[in-house]
Amino acid sequence: MTTSTAARAEHAEIAPTARIHPNVVLGEGSVVGDFVIIGEPPRGAKPGELETRIGPGAVIRSHTVIYAGNVIGSGFQSGHGALLRESNSLGDSVSVGSHSIIEHHVRIEDKVRIHSQAFVPEFSTLKRGSWVGPGVRITNAPHPLCPDVKDCIVGATLEPGAKIGANATLLPGVVVGENALVGAGAVVTRDVPAGAVVAGNPARVVKHIQDLVCSASGLNPYRAILGEMSEGDE
Amino acid sequence: MTTSTAARAEHAEIAPTARIHPNVVLGEGSVVGDFVIIGEPPRGAKPGELETRIGPGAVIRSHTVIYAGNVIGSGFQSGHGALLRESNSLGDSVSVGSHSIIEHHVRIEDKVRIHSQAFVPEFSTLKRGSWVGPGVRITNAPHPLCPDVKDCIVGATLEPGAKIGANATLLPGVVVGENALVGAGAVVTRDVPAGAVVAGNPARVVKHIQDLVCSASGLNPYRAILGEMSEGDE
Amino acid sequence: MTTSTAARAEHAEIAPTARIHPNVVLGEGSVVGDFVIIGEPPRGAKPGELETRIGPGAVIRSHTVIYAGNVIGSGFQSGHGALLRESNSLGDSVSVGSHSIIEHHVRIEDKVRIHSQAFVPEFSTLKRGSWVGPGVRITNAPHPLCPDVKDCIVGATLEPGAKIGANATLLPGVVVGENALVGAGAVVTRDVPAGAVVAGNPARVVKHIQDLVCSASGLNPYRAILGEMSEGDE
Repeated sequence: MTTSTAARAEHAEIAPTARIHPNVVLGEGSVVGDFVIIGEPPRGAKPGELETRIGPGAVIRSHTVIYAGNVIGSGFQSGHGALLRESNSLGDSVSVGSHSIIEHHVRIEDKVRIHSQAFVPEFSTLKRGSWVGPGVRITNAPHPLCPDVKDCIVGATLEPGAKIGANATLLPGVVVGENALVGAGAVVTRDVPAGAVVAGNPARVVKHIQDLVCSASGLNPYRAILGEMSEGDE
Repeated sequence: MTTSTAARAEHAEIAPTARIHPNVVLGEGSVVGDFVIIGEPPRGAKPGELETRIGPGAVIRSHTVIYAGNVIGSGFQSGHGALLRESNSLGDSVSVGSHSIIEHHVRIEDKVRIHSQAFVPEFSTLKRGSWVGPGVRITNAPHPLCPDVKDCIVGATLEPGAKIGANATLLPGVVVGENALVGAGAVVTRDVPAGAVVAGNPARVVKHIQDLVCSASGLNPYRAILGEMSEGDE
Repeated sequence: MTTSTAARAEHAEIAPTARIHPNVVLGEGSVVGDFVIIGEPPRGAKPGELETRIGPGAVIRSHTVIYAGNVIGSGFQSGHGALLRESNSLGDSVSVGSHSIIEHHVRIEDKVRIHSQAFVPEFSTLKRGSWVGPGVRITNAPHPLCPDVKDCIVGATLEPGAKIGANATLLPGVVVGENALVGAGAVVTRDVPAGAVVAGNPARVVKHIQDLVCSASGLNPYRAILGEMSEGDE
């Protein structure tokens, strides 16, 4: 760890094996695990050329790599071996699970949770409280290796509270509506309406979230969201 | 590596860059690769508070992370970058492949082989000799972010000898029967009968393992299991 | 890093935390990141027993593991945490993305690009200019744990310019034809004709690449390949 970083992060707990590049501002009370890299310079940039800001209370687990040029809010958590490339904006209370990859120019709002081994490509937008399951793959290039890819590339958008089940695939530019639920293993080729539940390959609407019942409670799992009930669920 | 660990593992070969926390018991003849962490304290626990036991002859490859509170039998192997969270029980001769993730409270019996990049969530049960292919995603939460998730969460069960093909997805609580074969890319939404071969999204029974023929031998690949022949296959 | 390696790579830039085993030849101008291992001995081999050759201008990003016995051309790039096991042959200008795994005895020709979190098993052949998307899983064992697996194992072949969309699965022995496009999330169970576009589970031909239109240019994204136009696209 560089001396300049030590100065900037004196109230953080940084494993001795972590590699912190210059110009990293790490919030108070943060914890950085072994074999982590923070402030990795992107292609063409020098170490420290771009600032990296991580808010207070971060828990950055071992083997995580965070590039320079990320702006991350408070309460950030990364799993082991997570990767965040440059120029992303993350809100407060965001978690990026173990072995997940966030490419560059991704916008992630508050309280978004990304589980393990997921892939979120450049220009994706994950709005407040959305959820990405294990192994989900979001895409953004309609035609790989197309010479015009820089013009046509388009990320997916998860509207607030949208949830994407494990191993699902989202095609480029898809918008998953507010509080919609994409079933595990679904391949989503077109926009998903708000509140819809979709499944299959290609994914089709199979029901609405108001039709779901939690086997434990006998109640709708999303009743708080639906406003049908409001008994203090969070 | 801590001194206490050195004392406990004097017949093991531990890379100098590996990080071994206190209260790790590593069996004789074990090999630990570079940038490995063993005994990582789970949330709320202090280093060394929970014992970690790994049987003799383990091969723990580079960048693997094993949390405190695992009890692992003899002949364990991990691939590179494998992750095992806390409170799991693993039998003898278990392998967890490169970049695979085993969450917590998972029970894995003897001779289970988990290939690369797989995901096994909490409360899963993998019985003797079952096999999990590359990129398989097992799930356990019927409704992500449901406020009652702690009550309704339910892992999948692989009965002895069940085999799950690459990139398959198992929905919460699914039981894959003894020696059944789940085809690559299948999305398994309901229980699979013993000996069945399933494929598709959603997965459907397409044949029985007694109908399979190995192109190399011209014989049934699971004839030893089926008891049709017993010529010393292992 | 060993002294012998320092001698062999004096024009390379090697992070101090990287672990370079003996008998690694690293081309001029190469860059090796933190927590990387190069020349890892495969099972049964001693460190340095097998030569590892990496051409000039390689960029080997952090946490990558490259086994001994690889022969890699010029301009190689690996993402973070990539894994290449032994006895592979890679041409020039090949990239292997973050968290991707290349098993052993894989042949990869010039200009092949493998994106993130992909899995390429032993005996696969990826021909010139082919592309493998994020999370693609190629398979090679028709019947997992079959006692005759060593005889019947058969890798997939990507013909020149074939492109495999994110999260797709290829069954053992499949041949994906020249310039064909496999849609994201497809499960490919049989050979794909040259120039075909396939999608679904199981994958079926849905169109030909000559029917595709780039939304940005209004032109066919693969017109240069198709020979319909040749205006200097690369």
